[in-house]
Amino acid sequence: MSEIRKNLVKNRWVAVASDRALKPNDFPTAGMGINESETRGGFCPFCGGNEEYTPPEIAAYRPDNQQPDSPGWLIRAIPNKFSAFLLEGELKENYSGIYSNYNGLGQHEVIIETPEHSPEYHEFELERVEKIISMFKNRYNSLAGDTRIKYIQIYKNRGMFGGASLGHSHSQIVGLPFDPQENEGMVQYYEQKGSCLICDILKQEQESKERIIYEGENFLIICPYAPRFAYESWIVPKRHMEHFGEINPLEEKELALLSRKITMAVIDSLDNPSYNFVINSAPVNVPYQAGYHWFWEITPRMLVAAGVEVATGVYINPVAPELAANILKESFQTML
Amino acid sequence: MSEIRKNLVKNRWVAVASDRALKPNDFPTAGMGINESETRGGFCPFCGGNEEYTPPEIAAYRPDNQQPDSPGWLIRAIPNKFSAFLLEGELKENYSGIYSNYNGLGQHEVIIETPEHSPEYHEFELERVEKIISMFKNRYNSLAGDTRIKYIQIYKNRGMFGGASLGHSHSQIVGLPFDPQENEGMVQYYEQKGSCLICDILKQEQESKERIIYEGENFLIICPYAPRFAYESWIVPKRHMEHFGEINPLEEKELALLSRKITMAVIDSLDNPSYNFVINSAPVNVPYQAGYHWFWEITPRMLVAAGVEVATGVYINPVAPELAANILKESFQTML
Repeated sequence: MSEIRKNLVKNRWVAVASDRALKPNDFPTAGMGINESETRGGFCPFCGGNEEYTPPEIAAYRPDNQQPDSPGWLIRAIPNKFSAFLLEGELKENYSGIYSNYNGLGQHEVIIETPEHSPEYHEFELERVEKIISMFKNRYNSLAGDTRIKYIQIYKNRGMFGGASLGHSHSQIVGLPFDPQENEGMVQYYEQKGSCLICDILKQEQESKERIIYEGENFLIICPYAPRFAYESWIVPKRHMEHFGEINPLEEKELALLSRKITMAVIDSLDNPSYNFVINSAPVNVPYQAGYHWFWEITPRMLVAAGVEVATGVYINPVAPELAANILKESFQTML
Repeated sequence: MSEIRKNLVKNRWVAVASDRALKPNDFPTAGMGINESETRGGFCPFCGGNEEYTPPEIAAYRPDNQQPDSPGWLIRAIPNKFSAFLLEGELKENYSGIYSNYNGLGQHEVIIETPEHSPEYHEFELERVEKIISMFKNRYNSLAGDTRIKYIQIYKNRGMFGGASLGHSHSQIVGLPFDPQENEGMVQYYEQKGSCLICDILKQEQESKERIIYEGENFLIICPYAPRFAYESWIVPKRHMEHFGEINPLEEKELALLSRKITMAVIDSLDNPSYNFVINSAPVNVPYQAGYHWFWEITPRMLVAAGVEVATGVYINPVAPELAANILKESFQTML
């Protein structure tokens, strides 16, 4: 079991195992650089045909009349077998002297993006990417329907430096029983200025044009002004939407196209780096706070957070976003 | 040049290159797993005899009557050649629409811990470790004397997953022109409870004994209750001291012994992992705030921060600190 413990120095919550310890050899960094499922004897539980080696599916796209957990699916959502969280019972706060924790209430899902072992997000047919986005939306809105969940994080880990532990293309969704308030800057900006930070960023970037990678019908792709990560980019919906789950079918279609193209550009122009993408969205099932506007963030992981980042939270980024935007733009334009 | 830009979504400062971009191949993750200086043609600028390839030294321990920047030194402090910061002129805030930045005022130093290429912190003679601690103290107090510096971070990056880019044993010191407020929890705790968080942690850990690795004369070594990193440990001074620079000679001596032993235990029991150590201390040259108490944090880097950490700031730690303390304690006891 896990507990969600309060780190009193950092004022952060940590989901920590309460009674077990992963051993040194179980960590993906053991043996440096070898973390593909191939090294685990060549067996991959995410491949089509191996459905019995995963927990029962939560949702799937598959031809009609097929049984759940049978082969033949296009995309599958399953519980994360190594989840720190369990969506069962109620949230309880426990105290021990000056310390406190919550029980590990929450949900952790894996979206298996394809039954095939090798192809990745940037290599999929557009139709498959559209279905992945649609699955993200469905799972987001379904989790938002459980009032015990307060924040939903959709994300992808790709490559060893992105924190991936399996090579088979997949994304993940975590439903947390509290709002981590990591994007609190949006709320504070709204309180101070009375307007949406992301809408104001859109306006300023459209005027200056310095950091634009691409402008589409419904989305703007930019390198942000103060990126934590080298070559970080954002896909920002032009329409003011607080929740990712509000995205409409036209926007879904364009997001599929653009998220695939920018990922292709990242892979192409940055020499096949590890990366994450994460969807920043408003908290759910909490008292309304104005100022949120969801956006899709792509963070190549070409540097490792070092002691200075670990200790101070100040990131050092050796790449000017204005130059990064030019490099990514050039590559983006050549992608189909 | 660098700018210290405000990330408005995260409410964090980012030190970002303003007019250059490191290219994909210049990143340490390029080629996965190869980041030792050996790969750069076998030449190491930190080795004794190569003094002319580093910027002029700031301080050094060397036999009397030796010239600066000549061979024969024991420990050298030099400016970081790739610093994002320059301690020159005054801090200026610049605005551009809704964005703002500071000029990259600050100091970034490297402490070369030995003229020899291979031996590391956990392998040094105790006398050398004492001199390193003494150099940390001297540089800390010297930087604290410049009123433009508001926070001093001493840290070590060891191994690829710790963010090291050179194999030759060294530590670093950054002097920032602002207080990053990453350890603000200590101040908030003091405001709420009227006592020091770290002193209260010491008391509770000494009573429960659950997470103690070692109790010495002047320091307690523990695994903290809510660690962000697997097998994270802290060396905490028992005396309430806000600044690392206040450490007295007896404490220096014991800290040298204990920091070497705990690092040996980390290397030994965790199968030679990457790690950081960082010294958390109070801000300097700012209006007085009660509640700070410095401590030394050792973070093995056996997992890579993945999408969920990047996006939410919530760390998932698969190792119970109570079990980690037992494992580290067992190894610690066998070290000399």
